[in-house]
Amino acid sequence: MSNPVTITAPDGLPFIEIVREFEAPVQAVYRAHEDPALVQQWLGPKGYEMEIDQFEMRTGGRYRYLHRDGDATYAFNGVVHVARPNEVVIQTFEWEGAPDVVSIESQTFEDLGGGRTRLTGRSVFPSVEARDSMIDNGMEHGVVEGYERLDDLLAADQH
Amino acid sequence: MSNPVTITAPDGLPFIEIVREFEAPVQAVYRAHEDPALVQQWLGPKGYEMEIDQFEMRTGGRYRYLHRDGDATYAFNGVVHVARPNEVVIQTFEWEGAPDVVSIESQTFEDLGGGRTRLTGRSVFPSVEARDSMIDNGMEHGVVEGYERLDDLLAADQH
Repeated sequence: MSNPVTITAPDGLPFIEIVREFEAPVQAVYRAHEDPALVQQWLGPKGYEMEIDQFEMRTGGRYRYLHRDGDATYAFNGVVHVARPNEVVIQTFEWEGAPDVVSIESQTFEDLGGGRTRLTGRSVFPSVEARDSMIDNGMEHGVVEGYERLDDLLAADQH
Repeated sequence: MSNPVTITAPDGLPFIEIVREFEAPVQAVYRAHEDPALVQQWLGPKGYEMEIDQFEMRTGGRYRYLHRDGDATYAFNGVVHVARPNEVVIQTFEWEGAPDVVSIESQTFEDLGGGRTRLTGRSVFPSVEARDSMIDNGMEHGVVEGYERLDDLLAADQH
């Protein structure tokens, strides 16, 4: 049974907050966000193929990746404002299907002790409409499934 | 007499929109945002000294600059999500006095014909409180004075 995902999307504001705990040390959770060979194994919904074009998870770095679901391809890109290992990443995020609609995301990695980690993600969209559209397009599904895949990856890592 | 600055900061939302027209071609207005030697001559309130640490106004670039007002120093930094000359820049923005409070800004450059340009800036803050604090800290003053200095720079450029 996986840990719950808490998604908060306040009415009339352009924010989404996502909180999830993991049964793994903060270093392992961070590594799974930093190393493209690991990211590729969990990010996004089940059944999607992920192709990484560029992935530089460091301050000033850039990333671009594609998700494929059958014939459909979804490309995403952004730049990394700051990445402090095992602590925080703040980056921009653009789905190339809506060019120039760019949000900013932070991921905070919190060591809960006992080999457990809390991850708090916060996305700020350029408009309330863009935020609503992200919710309507099934973001929750992708997040929940992605984090279940991340659980599996972290469990395999510990054995 | 300079053109008016229209600043819109809707109640209860983390946005600021700034619209200003310039009596100069879009290429000149863009260049004044792209070339650090020009930026240094106008960005910020009158009487401030600006020191540029890094200034790469291109997709994936980074910038960092300092404003000095007597003994006080204010440092700012960010990364450039996209820069398309004479069209748009989208970048992050952080005042180092409030670390990790990062907003995202877009600047749209619009050719109005007849050697005139409209600049539309939109800032999205990570919280409504951060937006309110920017307003309370005299942002309007800096913007109005900075754009008057930019008018002077553009006028000198055309003669």
